[in-house]
Amino acid sequence: MSPTPVTFSLPTAPAGYAWEATSEAVAERYGIPVDQVARFDLNTAPAPPALAARLLKAGRLDVPLSEYPPSDYRRLVAAAAARYEVSADELLVGAGADEILDIIAKAFLPPGGTAILPAPSYAMFRVLTEQRGATVTVVPRLSAADGYAIDAPGIREAARTAQLVWLCSPNNPTALPEPDESIAALLAFMAVDATLEGRPLPVVVLDEAYAEFTGSSLVHLRLDYPALIVVRTLSKAYSLAGLRIGFAIARWELIAAMGPYRPPGSVSVVSVSIGAEVLADRKLPARIVTAVIAERERLAAALDGAGWTVRPSETNFLLVEFESPERASAIAEGLLQRGLVPRTFPAEHPLAACLRLTVRDRTQDDRLILAAQELAASKR
Amino acid sequence: MSPTPVTFSLPTAPAGYAWEATSEAVAERYGIPVDQVARFDLNTAPAPPALAARLLKAGRLDVPLSEYPPSDYRRLVAAAAARYEVSADELLVGAGADEILDIIAKAFLPPGGTAILPAPSYAMFRVLTEQRGATVTVVPRLSAADGYAIDAPGIREAARTAQLVWLCSPNNPTALPEPDESIAALLAFMAVDATLEGRPLPVVVLDEAYAEFTGSSLVHLRLDYPALIVVRTLSKAYSLAGLRIGFAIARWELIAAMGPYRPPGSVSVVSVSIGAEVLADRKLPARIVTAVIAERERLAAALDGAGWTVRPSETNFLLVEFESPERASAIAEGLLQRGLVPRTFPAEHPLAACLRLTVRDRTQDDRLILAAQELAASKR
Repeated sequence: MSPTPVTFSLPTAPAGYAWEATSEAVAERYGIPVDQVARFDLNTAPAPPALAARLLKAGRLDVPLSEYPPSDYRRLVAAAAARYEVSADELLVGAGADEILDIIAKAFLPPGGTAILPAPSYAMFRVLTEQRGATVTVVPRLSAADGYAIDAPGIREAARTAQLVWLCSPNNPTALPEPDESIAALLAFMAVDATLEGRPLPVVVLDEAYAEFTGSSLVHLRLDYPALIVVRTLSKAYSLAGLRIGFAIARWELIAAMGPYRPPGSVSVVSVSIGAEVLADRKLPARIVTAVIAERERLAAALDGAGWTVRPSETNFLLVEFESPERASAIAEGLLQRGLVPRTFPAEHPLAACLRLTVRDRTQDDRLILAAQELAASKR
Repeated sequence: MSPTPVTFSLPTAPAGYAWEATSEAVAERYGIPVDQVARFDLNTAPAPPALAARLLKAGRLDVPLSEYPPSDYRRLVAAAAARYEVSADELLVGAGADEILDIIAKAFLPPGGTAILPAPSYAMFRVLTEQRGATVTVVPRLSAADGYAIDAPGIREAARTAQLVWLCSPNNPTALPEPDESIAALLAFMAVDATLEGRPLPVVVLDEAYAEFTGSSLVHLRLDYPALIVVRTLSKAYSLAGLRIGFAIARWELIAAMGPYRPPGSVSVVSVSIGAEVLADRKLPARIVTAVIAERERLAAALDGAGWTVRPSETNFLLVEFESPERASAIAEGLLQRGLVPRTFPAEHPLAACLRLTVRDRTQDDRLILAAQELAASKR
């Protein structure tokens, strides 16, 4: 039997995004030079691709910087459609995946509606649901032993009275994709339920921000489940979080329904122009992913060697579990004192005893490894 | 007596932004080379400042392109605060003024609420109100003879049951600022009404996208009317629409209330970095504004000489009125055939007999002047 979904009522004020401390704030608080602060909390790459710097310098823009970006983002859409192997009318551009999620909430979540959230997952899902005046129904994920997988029967049941389901695979912050076929099966069952009960399909958002690190994508499932929206980004496997470019991929009917909610030209002319060029380089993400995976395995082994419990990962970050929330907090403080910023989880969070750590470059990761060794030694 | 405000009920689907045709679409439809298409419809500058191109080439970014922009936009906020002479906590950054307006709607317009719109005005006010699930109460502006000024008594009366008032001065598309003191007086009366009736002040949004062209701003009124939010942008007087940078300026309490609705880093690292530098150049907007005003007067005189009725303007665009909506459509078609794209208004719009034309550079404007002369001749 699946666990009963836990419903949280809408609080007076909706959730807001919890801002990461700036590097300057960390430097000031811990008395270290700002250039010694290393960000293990943002799941970004340690450096952008050389191609981006060359393009920036060349300054070839789709339109002059005095103009708004082209209203149809033509070149960027064409490049992304070719890259993701979909047609141009199956694609919507946003200022990062975050804007895509916001547009989805506006288009498909009515105020007073309900969205299903398999928790823990990406923080913005709850934020955007509540800001829309809708309610989150949490369906807890399975245990670490079960790879933090979604509770598919629980989601299926909860989705019977919901307009929208937020999925993320590989999931942030648990670092693993859903098991093979589990999402396809869930969608099929949800379609059966909706058909039998004579109601529209719930919209399913599948955030694939980290998909390139697994080498596979479920974009093709839009053909089987017409209410599926897959979200992609240039922030992770393209190492270009600073461009702020994300995409929705879905059947054209859904893209058309989202159109009126797309703001006029939120992505800068520079980002549009560089994004189109970068997407045309077919070898780029594979090169980055290969390097990240090699470094991830090295980092995981070394942290494991320092006595840390490193969970398996198919992303560009590691989830490390400690004996208790108190120990996780103590480790986080020890890292911060060394200028290494981990992602922590609040006391009430199911991962309160964990830290999330981005795979960075060899130099930064070596600092993390050394810190892990020192902190392990100081405990004894 | 003020006219009765006209209330439009919320349609089934909310309004969406009416996208401008791309230059490629215009070129294809009218059989002209795309580089011969000149945009008189976007109220953008014909070229970016040389400083921006230099900064782009230099490639000095606040953080690498692989990182998200700093979560507090520190340097950009500091530069904008210095430029607008407010403190850093009185300022919020958005991906263009459009994102600022969206954040305002989310923070201050409850679904089912009401916003006052002195029409005609900027199209996004209605779009964002309806997308929020709120209703627009239109208070028509006065006539052309009265400078299209707001109907202050009408707004005051309508605002008694509204949460938000959308103002824009100088107003787009009517090209003129409100008369001296009229906004200050309106705010004072609204504050009196709210106090006497024991209700919170309606939030008043004052979009000052074109303020630099008048040389004055009402930012200081936030001290008298605590629910005032002034919106500024780099898209007009800074000639940098392609960066997508806008600001809200308000008392810190309002900025704090908007904070939870600000998405995590929607402005690109490149835009953040260039924006901060450009704002530090104190002479830049004045130089651009002086040039635009000189060219505007030349263009207006020449179009007037061709027999067009050019309305007075204190912005970077002109409103031209024709004998009838049909004549305006015919002129628009004649311009488009020459690759010159005007902003038109739909048949039911109060300005259906008008075209809105951006002041561009001498070369493009000369093409417009020649077209006006030819179209006038062809009529006879």
